Amino acid sequence: MQLIDGKAISMQIKQEIAAEVAEIKAKGGKVPHLAVIIVGHDGGSETYVKNKVLSCEQCGFKSTKIAFESDITEDELLAAIDKLNKDNDVDGFIVQLPLPKHISEQKVIEAIDYKKDVDGFHPINVGRTSIGLPAFVSATPAGILELLKRYNIETKGKNCVVIGRSNIVGKPVASLMMQKAYPGNATVTVCHSGTKNIKEICKEADIIIAAMGSPKFVTADMVKDGAVVIDVGTTRVPCAESKTGFKLTGDVDFENVAPKCSFITPVPGGVGPMTICSLMKNTLLAGKKEIYK
Amino acid sequence: MQLIDGKAISMQIKQEIAAEVAEIKAKGGKVPHLAVIIVGHDGGSETYVKNKVLSCEQCGFKSTKIAFESDITEDELLAAIDKLNKDNDVDGFIVQLPLPKHISEQKVIEAIDYKKDVDGFHPINVGRTSIGLPAFVSATPAGILELLKRYNIETKGKNCVVIGRSNIVGKPVASLMMQKAYPGNATVTVCHSGTKNIKEICKEADIIIAAMGSPKFVTADMVKDGAVVIDVGTTRVPCAESKTGFKLTGDVDFENVAPKCSFITPVPGGVGPMTICSLMKNTLLAGKKEIYK
Repeated sequence: MQLIDGKAISMQIKQEIAAEVAEIKAKGGKVPHLAVIIVGHDGGSETYVKNKVLSCEQCGFKSTKIAFESDITEDELLAAIDKLNKDNDVDGFIVQLPLPKHISEQKVIEAIDYKKDVDGFHPINVGRTSIGLPAFVSATPAGILELLKRYNIETKGKNCVVIGRSNIVGKPVASLMMQKAYPGNATVTVCHSGTKNIKEICKEADIIIAAMGSPKFVTADMVKDGAVVIDVGTTRVPCAESKTGFKLTGDVDFENVAPKCSFITPVPGGVGPMTICSLMKNTLLAGKKEIYK
Repeated sequence: MQLIDGKAISMQIKQEIAAEVAEIKAKGGKVPHLAVIIVGHDGGSETYVKNKVLSCEQCGFKSTKIAFESDITEDELLAAIDKLNKDNDVDGFIVQLPLPKHISEQKVIEAIDYKKDVDGFHPINVGRTSIGLPAFVSATPAGILELLKRYNIETKGKNCVVIGRSNIVGKPVASLMMQKAYPGNATVTVCHSGTKNIKEICKEADIIIAAMGSPKFVTADMVKDGAVVIDVGTTRVPCAESKTGFKLTGDVDFENVAPKCSFITPVPGGVGPMTICSLMKNTLLAGKKEIYK
């Protein structure tokens, strides 16, 4: 069994990005600039945004954090987005989710200029990813593919089972894994809450991508010997021994599943660090105008 | 075994549309207007366009056919598209594919205003379909779902195997069949040229959607008893006995597969007539501004 070290890979990728940015700078070019909008004081969101700003520093990017109180109106937020859309210095930006209930997340996602949508959530980027056109690919799915690539994991003709059909992980990762490309070219099955025979389906999988947010859902009896298991779950489970009072728990019963796997991602330290890393990569692409002019 | 009669269903739907259009007209409203651009003289394309114009008449729509010779430049075609984008009288329009090789189909698809893209090929409509937002759904996939609905075929929790991953059928129909909706909520597997164990996978399917364009690919030994089989294939196979010199042949070995099925679509007369019918439905939606304002 080989552990997939997302933390190490993400550090390596950030160093690669930093080297490229240094070169751009040396040639007198413009350093990529990421802006992050955060609304309110959700603990998880604040940590994520802090890490994103920190990652920008590590990559040599310029970053701007724009914080609003949770009583901001939808119109005010949309106006802030419009300002960033028009700001030529900003190459890409994101609005940290979730948002307060009085603001429509979908409206916010669609208000972002797709050419600056480095989270890859805008319908144009979702559609272009599905069609196989250059696009800002949603960060977590892109991170998963990058891990498969860096570990030279064969995907062609493999049975890949995706558990979960969310718009930000399940659906786009399924879409990528079925493309005629590497990583990809796999036979993809998408399972979800409506699936009846999930145990039997997983048992046939060469690659399992678990992304439904249900702690320890994937148990050893669902995994065949030699399978590759990618765990996207990060549920905060209360934990008395932890300083923070909780523990990030994946969708896979790691302890019992790991011994059966050829490759497996831990939680934390697997897919998690790759998500921010993909955001950095998308920002670099935005800065270089590689996806859109 | 029950035969799914796409021809009858499509006639019924066109009558429903015609009734709605008559009502719109009676109330002094604007009749939906579809424009169709055709380039060159491909026999298949000319037949399709003729049938689309005829269907517009049956539905009570206004239609405009714009024909160009195959030596039209890409820029000239893009200019014609731009004109239709700006023409307030035109609610929706399509450019009949395939196009001559010197014209980029992708560029043409993306040049169409997504709010008039009644073929549902624009990345925004593809992305919105995947996300589950209101969209012009690609015509063939929409037609397949309509057939499942009209025959009250249960899809929830069923194993649905899609063979083929084209951008206009395989991928979008897979996307629709996994949505939490009816028809949909199925466990979806997408098979393609890279799939190794396609026979075994099909054998487990409750619903098979065959859309790879390989005549009689799906044989009786790949289908379990009681399965629902939807045949999207329409390959022109030479045939001496036919007036036209060819015969439309599906992806399913109908003669031997049909006796095992609970429901099956014939070729021709199954999915085919539904595709134009979905285009008419999208045009009605465009005319009523139900998807986009």
